[in-house]
Amino acid sequence: MTFSPLVEQLLESLRVLPGVGPRTAQRMALHLLERDREGGLRLSQVMAEALDRVGYCRRCRNLTEQSLCSICEETRRSDRTICVVESPADLMAIEEAGGYQGRYFVLHGHLSPLDGIGPEDLGLDALEKLVREEAPDEVILATNPTVEGEASAHYIAEQLRPLEIRLSRLAYGVPMGGDLEYVDSGTLSRAFLGRQAFSD
Amino acid sequence: MTFSPLVEQLLESLRVLPGVGPRTAQRMALHLLERDREGGLRLSQVMAEALDRVGYCRRCRNLTEQSLCSICEETRRSDRTICVVESPADLMAIEEAGGYQGRYFVLHGHLSPLDGIGPEDLGLDALEKLVREEAPDEVILATNPTVEGEASAHYIAEQLRPLEIRLSRLAYGVPMGGDLEYVDSGTLSRAFLGRQAFSD
Repeated sequence: MTFSPLVEQLLESLRVLPGVGPRTAQRMALHLLERDREGGLRLSQVMAEALDRVGYCRRCRNLTEQSLCSICEETRRSDRTICVVESPADLMAIEEAGGYQGRYFVLHGHLSPLDGIGPEDLGLDALEKLVREEAPDEVILATNPTVEGEASAHYIAEQLRPLEIRLSRLAYGVPMGGDLEYVDSGTLSRAFLGRQAFSD
Repeated sequence: MTFSPLVEQLLESLRVLPGVGPRTAQRMALHLLERDREGGLRLSQVMAEALDRVGYCRRCRNLTEQSLCSICEETRRSDRTICVVESPADLMAIEEAGGYQGRYFVLHGHLSPLDGIGPEDLGLDALEKLVREEAPDEVILATNPTVEGEASAHYIAEQLRPLEIRLSRLAYGVPMGGDLEYVDSGTLSRAFLGRQAFSD
């Protein structure tokens, strides 16, 4: 015994959402059908509109339905640094951390030849053009500290090197508030290599 | 700093889903926008169609977009028992447990005078009419073992008593596979009251 065909379709479709298995899909579908049809209808409309209209900022490739994203439009931010990130989620994490006042460039992925993701998919030509035009003081390569993120950072560094702009990478080290006992050995040895003079 | 207005609207709308907070909403929205626009568009269409078209089975009030639900249409099931449940989720749980071969009636809630939920909201007139017309051997009052579920079962029992049909309630007792140490005292004393002769 199953639900009616249309309810089954809804259960199936809900599973495109990350972290939603059969059980959660059922709870969500029944919640919408039994208790919040209005909210569900609004969600379906907003979802269709967002998926149709949200594209990339023409300058930094951040997600936006406008031509320029809100960060690129903000006049008070510095044009002197561009921070290259893999995803809009990474950009938001940096914004939430606070402190960074420059611009961004979003790759929407990392180099992954096996998956057929090359430089053109990451908009690296657009990045080079942007750096050439705006001539910032520094480009921060804030791709993830993973094999693919490292490889992407190296590739971008090679591409931008002729422009003679300062390139940097986020510091590696032990995370704040952690216990050394639980830090993996790779991180720990990078933290040793990158140790800094102690100052009060 | 926030996302663009339309992405923010999507984050906000996703929170109508049960168990979805700001963090999960962001993960879902970015997943759809970055990795599965097609799946998201299909979800928004199916959701709109389901919320628009899925209603109640005219016989048992189970959720369906058809006139009769699949359980009511199944000719091999017995018409001799009607099991009254609070929600389609309860119905599915009983179906998944297996063993029950009769029909159902779905209340879509329980009596709750404080929330303004009275007998008419639970379709109790339709239930009485159904029982009168089909004259089953037994009506199983499988509302939840909560104060409101109990109250609803008692109310329905009063309403159906003149029809002189056998009324029953699910057995109370200790759950299978549990440890007595962790069973609450209310359940434990009900299990003592309902103890049965031991048989090999």
